[in-house]
Amino acid sequence: MRRAIATVCLGGTLPAKLAAAAAAGFDAVEIFEPDLLSTPLRPAQVRERCADLGLGIDLYQPFRDAEGLTPPEFARVMHRLDAKLETMHQLGTDLLLVCSNVARDTIADDSLTAEQLVLMADRAQQAGVRLAYEALAWGRHVNTVDHAWKIVESCDHPALGLCLDSFHILARGTDPALLASVPGEKMFFLQLADAPRIGVDMLQWSRHWRSFPGQGDFDLAGFMESVLQAGYTGPWSLEVFNDVFRQADTASTAIDAMRSLLILEEQVHPGALPAAPAPQEVCFAELAAADPEPLVGLLSGLGFTRTGRHLNKPVDLWEQGRARILLNTAGYRDRDGAAVAAIGLETREPESLAARAEALKVPAALRRHSPGESRVPCVEAPDGTQMFLCTTDVSRRGGWIADFPTLHQGNTGTGTAVQAIGSEEQVIGIDHLALTQPWHRFDEAVLFHRAVLGLAVHPTLDLADPYGLFRSRAMTSAGSREQPGVRIALNVAPAPDPHISAGQHIALACRDVRAAVRDARARGVSFLPIPGNYYSDLAARFALDEEFLSELRELQLMYDRDDAGELLHCYTLSVGPLCVELLQRVGGYEGFGAANAPVRLAVQHAA
Amino acid sequence: MRRAIATVCLGGTLPAKLAAAAAAGFDAVEIFEPDLLSTPLRPAQVRERCADLGLGIDLYQPFRDAEGLTPPEFARVMHRLDAKLETMHQLGTDLLLVCSNVARDTIADDSLTAEQLVLMADRAQQAGVRLAYEALAWGRHVNTVDHAWKIVESCDHPALGLCLDSFHILARGTDPALLASVPGEKMFFLQLADAPRIGVDMLQWSRHWRSFPGQGDFDLAGFMESVLQAGYTGPWSLEVFNDVFRQADTASTAIDAMRSLLILEEQVHPGALPAAPAPQEVCFAELAAADPEPLVGLLSGLGFTRTGRHLNKPVDLWEQGRARILLNTAGYRDRDGAAVAAIGLETREPESLAARAEALKVPAALRRHSPGESRVPCVEAPDGTQMFLCTTDVSRRGGWIADFPTLHQGNTGTGTAVQAIGSEEQVIGIDHLALTQPWHRFDEAVLFHRAVLGLAVHPTLDLADPYGLFRSRAMTSAGSREQPGVRIALNVAPAPDPHISAGQHIALACRDVRAAVRDARARGVSFLPIPGNYYSDLAARFALDEEFLSELRELQLMYDRDDAGELLHCYTLSVGPLCVELLQRVGGYEGFGAANAPVRLAVQHAA
Repeated sequence: MRRAIATVCLGGTLPAKLAAAAAAGFDAVEIFEPDLLSTPLRPAQVRERCADLGLGIDLYQPFRDAEGLTPPEFARVMHRLDAKLETMHQLGTDLLLVCSNVARDTIADDSLTAEQLVLMADRAQQAGVRLAYEALAWGRHVNTVDHAWKIVESCDHPALGLCLDSFHILARGTDPALLASVPGEKMFFLQLADAPRIGVDMLQWSRHWRSFPGQGDFDLAGFMESVLQAGYTGPWSLEVFNDVFRQADTASTAIDAMRSLLILEEQVHPGALPAAPAPQEVCFAELAAADPEPLVGLLSGLGFTRTGRHLNKPVDLWEQGRARILLNTAGYRDRDGAAVAAIGLETREPESLAARAEALKVPAALRRHSPGESRVPCVEAPDGTQMFLCTTDVSRRGGWIADFPTLHQGNTGTGTAVQAIGSEEQVIGIDHLALTQPWHRFDEAVLFHRAVLGLAVHPTLDLADPYGLFRSRAMTSAGSREQPGVRIALNVAPAPDPHISAGQHIALACRDVRAAVRDARARGVSFLPIPGNYYSDLAARFALDEEFLSELRELQLMYDRDDAGELLHCYTLSVGPLCVELLQRVGGYEGFGAANAPVRLAVQHAA
Repeated sequence: MRRAIATVCLGGTLPAKLAAAAAAGFDAVEIFEPDLLSTPLRPAQVRERCADLGLGIDLYQPFRDAEGLTPPEFARVMHRLDAKLETMHQLGTDLLLVCSNVARDTIADDSLTAEQLVLMADRAQQAGVRLAYEALAWGRHVNTVDHAWKIVESCDHPALGLCLDSFHILARGTDPALLASVPGEKMFFLQLADAPRIGVDMLQWSRHWRSFPGQGDFDLAGFMESVLQAGYTGPWSLEVFNDVFRQADTASTAIDAMRSLLILEEQVHPGALPAAPAPQEVCFAELAAADPEPLVGLLSGLGFTRTGRHLNKPVDLWEQGRARILLNTAGYRDRDGAAVAAIGLETREPESLAARAEALKVPAALRRHSPGESRVPCVEAPDGTQMFLCTTDVSRRGGWIADFPTLHQGNTGTGTAVQAIGSEEQVIGIDHLALTQPWHRFDEAVLFHRAVLGLAVHPTLDLADPYGLFRSRAMTSAGSREQPGVRIALNVAPAPDPHISAGQHIALACRDVRAAVRDARARGVSFLPIPGNYYSDLAARFALDEEFLSELRELQLMYDRDDAGELLHCYTLSVGPLCVELLQRVGGYEGFGAANAPVRLAVQHAA
């Protein structure tokens, strides 16, 4: 499988793009003309640079507005073609993308278009170049792949074939099965892009919102099956125009691109990548804070017990029910900050999952490791969170947990009491984590959680925040009665105050959240105050028992309901950008209380 | 004229929104329910707060999904309505917006909808409330204002009328003239929003891309004329959902909103605002730099002569042709920066223009003023640029220029030679200024330049930059042979490097740009190097004379052509984010060389 990427997919200068594509493991590039025009490298130097990097140049693009023209216009096209053929000769590439004409005054005459394409193909052939004709979805006259094929077929010219672009084909809703009628050798090139179905004008959609395969809503695996069945044997090349990717780091975007292609290959050729089951549970979350004391107070107040301390590192283990929190007391890089620095993912096959991550070019996390410590594979998510791939053996205290010898009375390390003050355990386990993503890596993060970790993707939500819209997407693995599954909400917040609005949180599942809040309050924990107007609205929306409603109000609990069940939840005041949510799911409620997010975010902002 | 604004138009907390609306001079607000739900103020406290601020509460909104329902569903609606009527009682408002139902299973039966609206209106009437029914453009069954009116008319209920929303009406292309058939007293409320025509799905368009009147593409003046002709006498209220405004400063957005309404009123009632002719010319540009020396070198190198020094301030006047540059040698707030700090706009009626700006709530610029200096009105543009409204009397050296006594040999201030080294003047005047705008004030800036200064608006361009898209919009006043008119390009740059990509520049019109470049080079000025590939592409696109092309290449001049003429231009290397463009317009070319911007920006990035 030959893998290629168009230089337009990446941000930065042409040399930076080429280096990033090579580093990500691509075999070839498409040179996007504006990238060539703005580099001081001459075409022959670009050719050399690519050769040095082991990159082929599989396509030069685009050659626009070339057919359906009057004779004088077409004469100018041939002049332009000659110049581009010379450039391609210097570049050392032999395939030119010709887009269908989009000009308002294109002449709607297939035989004229064919005649002009043949003249161009003759000229190209003399220069050792072939032309790949592509129907743009907004082409004036030719805008479907079947129409383009009809014309190319009628030309019957060895130097003229099709360029297939999944965006243009799938955006118009064309059934890729009709490609079966195109001979494989006439499909000169294949460009792949996904896109979210967002109801935007075709041109805008294509220019700004394309995404890498698996990041949008198109069925690219089905598309590839049709293309391969029709006999296509050329490179798989990514061509994505995306406003966000252009602004992102060149090297990591190239890796994200390669990952998307590898996953698509796996969908089409099962077994192409190491398989691994999705993790079943978050077995721990590690918090780091510049000043750990407020978190110590919070964990104690919520009924956690400090049960262990790391063999060699200043990290404490706190437990309650199945919830385990590691508290890194060594400080945090951001002076006022606090963060979920790492999470442990419980999996039956850590090594398979690590192998899958490596095959998908996920960086291994850098972590100091001392003799005597257990070896736990650890990878770095796009947002920088370290993800430990663990098998927790609680009964024998094996695996990672063996690095945290049980604390006994008298061995309390930094002086905090081992056992929290009395009362029974209210927290059952970690229900979910809400993790803030860098805005330009959101799509990458979704693909990472889905395709590397095997989590299921839920729809994107846009939630109103007092200062803009807050984007949130849940990723989950299937749970069971014993294990709740992994639930992660990926969030991106608007400007201007990412610290507050994008606050990360850990949501803890409680047996009885009302009792949990009462206990925590008694131990001095403060919760986010919810406005009285919120409860008036609850009463208007749901027929709630008066007593129940006043209990919600007293405990500052928020409430949501869907067809499957109910959610009761509340938030502690934040420590830096971090807070803890306590929640209780009743019946089969599987959401995250999104309806309550605007009020919660507004109160957090105002706090 | 009663002026109102919906709280959803502004970002921030409800108290901040109310304060900003009052400060901007609004008479009333619409309370958007989510704003009420997330404030700790009880409804009665919101009522008091509004009363203290002199704001009425003209509408409570929205009440959704209320009609076309089965009996049990409708029973729940009546329960919800009762609760909201109680809230409105406490708020002290008597008008509720009821939106047409958007649910998939809405029953498409006008008589059922009418029946349910009448039941709601009965209940509302008992509570002293009226209902304003609005057809959402994406309503499931009722989605046009004529359909909504047919139903409201059939109800014939005193507590039931229409809410007109310019977005929903104009987005669907409805002719507002049909409102003539609606009696004025049945138009209970009017909501105004503009929007750019961008080919987005109706719902997304409405939720994210509305703008204030005059900032989009709708004919709101024509719409208002129809509405007034039909007999509407209620408030003019702004209801704008816009992702960018939510993130912007609350107070300045409120002022921008008020300005848009005042301008709309002026369109409908000519004479409502002080009139002023558009400025004819940029009579000076003031540059400030942390270290002025590189700018001194640049101006000398470009053939400018230092001709004056301010009476009291460390500001030098440099001149060449009609181009005047003030160089502030006192430093600049940004240590490494440089900026166009102020511009002088030549106008026959500075006082009228200042009065118009004041009426439109443009802040007067803070500027120290010493005795003996001329008094020149100065206002502050949304991007912070100070705009002096000047009448330049060169012959008598009157007006602002009188503050810059002519320098004579021996009176050279800080030691730079008064007269640049020989050679004739090549620069004719200031052709245009490119000014970087804060991204969240772009629409406000366009409206400011159009409606306060009277400049004409050109279409928005999205230009590819190596790290994203660069948005640019030209604003111009009509020129003449003697005076070129004012030309300003407002730019917004993408992340991550606003300093470079968003660089401001001053473009100087040259008699013969080739001679100007040669002279400047001889004096040591360095120009932006343009890649050779750019010239190969020029040769492919245009049939250019070989000698001419090699001259362009030698002088690193860029070239553009349209039906009216040609442009030759080039850029000096940047001083901080600032550079100078030299250009020559041939024939009637009126553009700004946008086709060359991607290459220029890429080279500036790489430099």
